[in-house]
Amino acid sequence: MNKHALFHQAKSEYSYAYDDKKLHILFRTMKDDVQSVKLSYGDPFDWTYKNRKARWESQLVEMTKRYSTHLFDYYFIEVEPKDYRCKYAFLIEADDKHYFYGSKRMEELEGLPPTDFDEGSFYDLSNYFNYPYLNYEDQANTPKWVKDTVWYQIFMDRFYSHSKKSNLPWAKLPVNNHEFYGGDIKGVIDKLPYLKDLGISGIYFTPIFESRTAHKYDTKDYFKIDPQFGTNEDFRLLVQEAHKLGIKVVLDAVLNHCGWDHPFFQDVVKYGRNSKYADCFFLDKDPILNFELTEDGSPKGHGNLRPNFRTFAYTPFMPKWNTGNELAQKHLLDSIEFWIKEFDIDGWRLDVSNEVSHDFLRKVKQVSRAAKADTFIFGENWDSSMPWLRGDQMDAVMNYDLSIPMWQYFDGKIDSEEFKNELTQYTALTPKHVMKNMFNQLDTHDTIRMKRRLKDNDERLKIAYILMFASAGAPNIYYGSEVGLTGEHDPDNRRCFNWDESTWNHSLHQLIKDLIQLRKQHPAFMESDYQFIDKSSISFVKHHKNESLLFLINDSEKSVKLNIDPAYQLQYTDVFSKKAVNVHAEVELPAYGYKILKFI
Amino acid sequence: MNKHALFHQAKSEYSYAYDDKKLHILFRTMKDDVQSVKLSYGDPFDWTYKNRKARWESQLVEMTKRYSTHLFDYYFIEVEPKDYRCKYAFLIEADDKHYFYGSKRMEELEGLPPTDFDEGSFYDLSNYFNYPYLNYEDQANTPKWVKDTVWYQIFMDRFYSHSKKSNLPWAKLPVNNHEFYGGDIKGVIDKLPYLKDLGISGIYFTPIFESRTAHKYDTKDYFKIDPQFGTNEDFRLLVQEAHKLGIKVVLDAVLNHCGWDHPFFQDVVKYGRNSKYADCFFLDKDPILNFELTEDGSPKGHGNLRPNFRTFAYTPFMPKWNTGNELAQKHLLDSIEFWIKEFDIDGWRLDVSNEVSHDFLRKVKQVSRAAKADTFIFGENWDSSMPWLRGDQMDAVMNYDLSIPMWQYFDGKIDSEEFKNELTQYTALTPKHVMKNMFNQLDTHDTIRMKRRLKDNDERLKIAYILMFASAGAPNIYYGSEVGLTGEHDPDNRRCFNWDESTWNHSLHQLIKDLIQLRKQHPAFMESDYQFIDKSSISFVKHHKNESLLFLINDSEKSVKLNIDPAYQLQYTDVFSKKAVNVHAEVELPAYGYKILKFI
Repeated sequence: MNKHALFHQAKSEYSYAYDDKKLHILFRTMKDDVQSVKLSYGDPFDWTYKNRKARWESQLVEMTKRYSTHLFDYYFIEVEPKDYRCKYAFLIEADDKHYFYGSKRMEELEGLPPTDFDEGSFYDLSNYFNYPYLNYEDQANTPKWVKDTVWYQIFMDRFYSHSKKSNLPWAKLPVNNHEFYGGDIKGVIDKLPYLKDLGISGIYFTPIFESRTAHKYDTKDYFKIDPQFGTNEDFRLLVQEAHKLGIKVVLDAVLNHCGWDHPFFQDVVKYGRNSKYADCFFLDKDPILNFELTEDGSPKGHGNLRPNFRTFAYTPFMPKWNTGNELAQKHLLDSIEFWIKEFDIDGWRLDVSNEVSHDFLRKVKQVSRAAKADTFIFGENWDSSMPWLRGDQMDAVMNYDLSIPMWQYFDGKIDSEEFKNELTQYTALTPKHVMKNMFNQLDTHDTIRMKRRLKDNDERLKIAYILMFASAGAPNIYYGSEVGLTGEHDPDNRRCFNWDESTWNHSLHQLIKDLIQLRKQHPAFMESDYQFIDKSSISFVKHHKNESLLFLINDSEKSVKLNIDPAYQLQYTDVFSKKAVNVHAEVELPAYGYKILKFI
Repeated sequence: MNKHALFHQAKSEYSYAYDDKKLHILFRTMKDDVQSVKLSYGDPFDWTYKNRKARWESQLVEMTKRYSTHLFDYYFIEVEPKDYRCKYAFLIEADDKHYFYGSKRMEELEGLPPTDFDEGSFYDLSNYFNYPYLNYEDQANTPKWVKDTVWYQIFMDRFYSHSKKSNLPWAKLPVNNHEFYGGDIKGVIDKLPYLKDLGISGIYFTPIFESRTAHKYDTKDYFKIDPQFGTNEDFRLLVQEAHKLGIKVVLDAVLNHCGWDHPFFQDVVKYGRNSKYADCFFLDKDPILNFELTEDGSPKGHGNLRPNFRTFAYTPFMPKWNTGNELAQKHLLDSIEFWIKEFDIDGWRLDVSNEVSHDFLRKVKQVSRAAKADTFIFGENWDSSMPWLRGDQMDAVMNYDLSIPMWQYFDGKIDSEEFKNELTQYTALTPKHVMKNMFNQLDTHDTIRMKRRLKDNDERLKIAYILMFASAGAPNIYYGSEVGLTGEHDPDNRRCFNWDESTWNHSLHQLIKDLIQLRKQHPAFMESDYQFIDKSSISFVKHHKNESLLFLINDSEKSVKLNIDPAYQLQYTDVFSKKAVNVHAEVELPAYGYKILKFI
């Protein structure tokens, strides 16, 4: 046995409260290295006494080998500690020997471990792992609506212009970020029926508060809709109309930094360290402004500038907030509360959330949930995000842990074997209560459009959408991608939505509409585990209770014959056509062909 | 290379902010398996642009193999990311090959990795680990006085009686927990000069608020000193007098549960689910009281009872608080604030802190620090406690991670090799800013006295004290242990302090006084790393800047000749006698003998 491969850690992705009753426990071994892993567990205080001997009421249960990556096997079990406390350790059988794997050391055992202890020897349990208490307060308690949501992301300036006040031709190319195309709030209201017809149930807006740029990630006024987009009252109407259609509304909170124009920072520009707002920022060195200003008083920035105050990246246009400062804190938290209480929004997406302090993120969650109990908080973290997703801070993140393997696979940077390996690793190591609420995306305003990533191959794009919809977590559609809007990296990924339906890919549009409905009808779409069924393709099965879905996928430019394992040679129903389908030893799929088949 | 042994995790004990500037990074390999580990790191946004090419300003630095356990080597480095952000990955050289070890996968490299990237390929960094930002607010910011403190733990009823109002003979044996011996607050005030002479600088009192028991972990009134011990005003005087002598005062906060007598719970006993305090507790099943009451209205408990309301362990005398309830929360937090603001205490030890919600622990820290900025918060966690020590909750815990290996070694449950192995593992995997503030103990009111654990062998006991004093963290002396008070497990470990000096072990007492002073004079005592110098003993070296201390220890009942490595055959100063000592190839030590030698 490879002892060095064994791994477990209490209170981590290897041991977490799925809810306030259930504990999920994971144990790692080298792949195909051990015969079995058992869990010995019990309440640390559950001793019964008889004849002055104490007996610990522990249980010994078999764990399931649930995930296998190139390197490791992961054994899983869900237990429900009867009194919310759990001490546990692992029993490994390998090379026909038995090992006790505890929190401090591993020992070879003669047979199984004792369950009877002398009264005085409680601390034999010191080599057990401990999950001391399942406390309700420590759960994320993510609103129930989140996992069922299909998101739609709108970049306001480019979605639809009701006012048509811009002089720019709407769908003019190349698009750029220093001109305004005139998309507005009333334009979104106009298009709500389109969104309802598409089937989405939540809109995430990139920032819409007053700022000088098109992207508006450099906020000037946290309490005011940018006049280019409309008024606060227009926005109130938008939320009301969306809610009538069962559509949630989430805004983008840029709490890491503000814009150069923000009055607090302008006060610093004017008064320097004497500004009463000086400590709202990090003015590391003098002169605070180590760059020239243009005639309109804004920074003459260039790529190699390193400002003397802290910023997002190195752009002087985005001074970083010191969220430890009370003035700054109150200002930002007031804005968080304002849009929930006064405008009834349903959640916040937190920009650059990984650079904001954990401490401040906790306050954002507290203020949000106090303002409205079922508010959803998710953030922009590009890396594995367990430290942010322990329940105290955010409910979810933009799920780059899923997106990046997908992108790298579709880019050809990793092959299908490695792709499946990384999806399995992600699935094994992401807590299941977190995974189901994740914000999943193929593309956003920060990335190349998925269509362009796939060299504008719409057939392959459909496969990407099927993969996203068949993943746990709530899928997001970046405006226009559903009809085939394409684009390179920023700014080209922010083209105007062309409402001329003759430019649309209608079969793509229909597939996405279908997937939205199918995901509602078949909960297996939302389950965590992909069970990959053959080496030659990325086809997989997902299970939910006694329903299973077979996703047969040919992600290649040639027609292929998939060899089907006898276990899957069954009678199915095609979820699209509802027709019966018999699957035999081979299934032929055309280039980029797919089938989603159900059996019960 | 054993790929399965490689391990790193961002934002964990493998990657943590030592302070708001320094990042500590650890990488694990199989023992003696790789030639070198290098860290590639840089600011994720630090790109310089030249001729339309972007260059990432990363650095490549060698990590140090700092710790080796039986199974693993741990490579360590401290870096100071210039703009508080850090992306990093590892370069491993093994079997004369180079590997890139990233957050998503490991790849074999042809030579070293590129530092130049094309402008568009930023996401090559997606296989890097990320420490997104070193935020001051996320630091524990433990008060500076803590690491220099020597603690003294007092169990009030048994320390010293000023009033002498108990009829029980003071040092009567066997001691028991259902009688009161009369120790009191004025008794502690009387003995402050003794404690000052001993050299301690902080007192931790087990609970002293009103309750029916001697141990007082079943609080009746969180705002009142138990009348057996004195009055609130007596306590105020005690804090004042202690502060005059430079001694800090820390109280025991029992926030996990209250006592049966607490008025909130008595209201529940009376009104059941109709009590306005019903939700302050967890009344899981009916009847709430599934046991008989005695004539005085208290539970007839027995060992196999499982109450229908949640409790500490299964004792009906200690109903568990629902700290998610606002009434309960306010009541407890008010008491936390009360004793700091009104009586100027210096910190809280949190009882059963591992079962209290993380959420409530955060509130306890916030309220405490707001009441007085340099308040110290530590808890009773018997297991590895990283999830509680990330900066947001507690500053430290009672350091059982250090105590348990010591006990098991002294008990003969593990041999000296395994003991050194576990100390090394503990040292490698405990963040250094946490370790230095830990509350270290050989014995407490919850354990057998260390002296009795060592079969009353006072010479061996001295070695245990040297080990504790030569560990990072603040040592604690359990009242009386310093003069040789002994005792089995509870209740015998709570014997009265015998103030008849003829019963004392004066050489033990003197050694502890010396160690307290030596620890102040020689910061090497407080450094984290033990460098064990030979296989045959537990002797070690500790370094601080250019001073080093050689701890030569013979933990055996026979005199031994220690073989000294040529590297340590030097001229030293004995820290006790201040005399010069030449160390040659052999040093003879008598049974349980020791030397602490300094060289610069």
